[in-house]
Amino acid sequence: MNAPIDVVRPVPDVNPGVLLARRLLPPELRAWVDRLDGELRQVCGYQLGLYDEDGRPTGQVIGKLLRPAFTLLCSAAAGGRPEDAVPAAAAIELLHNASLIHDDIMDGDTERRHRPTVWARYGTSLAILAGDALIALGFEALADRHDARTAHSVAVLARSLRLLAGGQDLDLRFESESTVTVHECLAMMAGKTGVLLGCACRLGAARSPAPPDWAVRLEGFGVHLGVAFQLVDDVLGIWGDPAVTGKPVGADLRARKKSAPVAAALAAGGTGPARIADLYSGREPLTDQDVTLLTELIEEAGGRAWTLAEADRQVSAAWDLIDDLDLDGSARAGLGALTASLMNRDH
Amino acid sequence: MNAPIDVVRPVPDVNPGVLLARRLLPPELRAWVDRLDGELRQVCGYQLGLYDEDGRPTGQVIGKLLRPAFTLLCSAAAGGRPEDAVPAAAAIELLHNASLIHDDIMDGDTERRHRPTVWARYGTSLAILAGDALIALGFEALADRHDARTAHSVAVLARSLRLLAGGQDLDLRFESESTVTVHECLAMMAGKTGVLLGCACRLGAARSPAPPDWAVRLEGFGVHLGVAFQLVDDVLGIWGDPAVTGKPVGADLRARKKSAPVAAALAAGGTGPARIADLYSGREPLTDQDVTLLTELIEEAGGRAWTLAEADRQVSAAWDLIDDLDLDGSARAGLGALTASLMNRDH
Repeated sequence: MNAPIDVVRPVPDVNPGVLLARRLLPPELRAWVDRLDGELRQVCGYQLGLYDEDGRPTGQVIGKLLRPAFTLLCSAAAGGRPEDAVPAAAAIELLHNASLIHDDIMDGDTERRHRPTVWARYGTSLAILAGDALIALGFEALADRHDARTAHSVAVLARSLRLLAGGQDLDLRFESESTVTVHECLAMMAGKTGVLLGCACRLGAARSPAPPDWAVRLEGFGVHLGVAFQLVDDVLGIWGDPAVTGKPVGADLRARKKSAPVAAALAAGGTGPARIADLYSGREPLTDQDVTLLTELIEEAGGRAWTLAEADRQVSAAWDLIDDLDLDGSARAGLGALTASLMNRDH
Repeated sequence: MNAPIDVVRPVPDVNPGVLLARRLLPPELRAWVDRLDGELRQVCGYQLGLYDEDGRPTGQVIGKLLRPAFTLLCSAAAGGRPEDAVPAAAAIELLHNASLIHDDIMDGDTERRHRPTVWARYGTSLAILAGDALIALGFEALADRHDARTAHSVAVLARSLRLLAGGQDLDLRFESESTVTVHECLAMMAGKTGVLLGCACRLGAARSPAPPDWAVRLEGFGVHLGVAFQLVDDVLGIWGDPAVTGKPVGADLRARKKSAPVAAALAAGGTGPARIADLYSGREPLTDQDVTLLTELIEEAGGRAWTLAEADRQVSAAWDLIDDLDLDGSARAGLGALTASLMNRDH
């Protein structure tokens, strides 16, 4: 399973988009979650960090608000007022958290953000229901304005939610497949991480005075960045310093995760990759020696280099898409800083 | 758990709304489900009956299309063209099926419409994901037109999905509570069945030339009818002829379901209801004698009479809400016939 990008990746506090999101989003998210009755309000609020495990309000949210930061920056970049993009930013964050709750059930993950996951804390039934409620709130937040632009944004958000389900479906299928191609890896990453980040960027620009094709190009920008971030995650999952990432050494390899570096190494062919395939096809737990060997074999076969190069290609493709747009300079700088901090990270 | 209303209740083939729904909906539903990729398309199509268990197209849908029938009739009743209400009707049916898939997981139900439920056939993970995908498709179907009316309809649909989750949450909580009041019963029914039927009626009228308050009143109409249908279901769940309902004798009582007749009987107080409470609080399986005794005690305490009278009150309240509207006569007759067939039924 691929860890969603905002879990393992702190963002510098100084980024203007993140600062804006931290100021504008929490009251909005709180207002929507408080539309739910008793138990569901508590469970959804717990996921967002609005309520602690004992149901007490915390006065904050727990996520990094990375997607809303992109929404607000893209709004400003396209000449809009970030305040006008707050409903879209809230919708994206609510849907993102809905998908986290449901994914955690499917993946059997019991911990997220250093707390029990929703299903681990409240049971599977309430977790399914809380995810559904957050999806409902997301569309409610976005459709709070009744105009033609909103209807179009809803269509984009709904399509993104459909493609997100497709990405998670691919990820689930990887578990039962013996090998996965780099093409399949990239398709899964595009669905599972790229689509919603792309939607976040597009909806940010959707209410701006800029021409409509700006929003479409910013969507492509977000999709490519989402894939790039996921590729960097895969590299850190194998070569990251456990003291910094907070994950045990070789966790991805021990779980025989079909990550991009593994797929790229297998594609190289030869005796090294054959040994990788052999170790991955086994059923018994991998030893520390196996993990060390795998790490070396994947690097030797070019898995690490390919993945980092592909991440760079995705970032270039992202910026190429919006290169000739006359974006607001300050917002463009904010997007650049956010991109850089997410690519050059050690956790 | 309360069986959703369209599972146990065939509708006469002659109703014009049902006939219209059967003609207009299947191609629309098929087109949306076919937007999904491979596995998810198969699973969602299976739920709707578009594909059989082996993945072969059936050329039809399996549901009764009761909610879409109300949408199309309300469209016509408010002077609109039913064809214009097809996206809304499809959205309602897609969300309804999403909630069935997710409810079946929560309730542990393994059979629906004489076939394995989605989670029983494809596993819990794919069932969660298929429900999410159908929610996405529902909003996508509704938001296929990009105008202000659509944005408003999306807000109504999203609010309904939120309230639907609240209704299911109440239903889940009933399981762990020793007794339930009739007020709580009605609130749960309103959330679990009324809200979506109300939404079906409202969205049908939303694109009509009629004044906006017609849509709001038709929503109230649908909510009351939904509650009425559920009340009749509860009566059939205890006193229905097993040969006709297809459910074993006393299934609801054996499951110690806190249905409306039981809640009404308990509210009467006295020795009979005390004995009911006693049998309901036990943990050991109820014997055939227990079930017969419960059936008698609930009837003697007025549980059956109260529930049927309340169903009548709900139907009256429904029609009172739209009584002075100058609805299209033929569509009004269709709504009347549909109401009557759903109230005067034996299964």
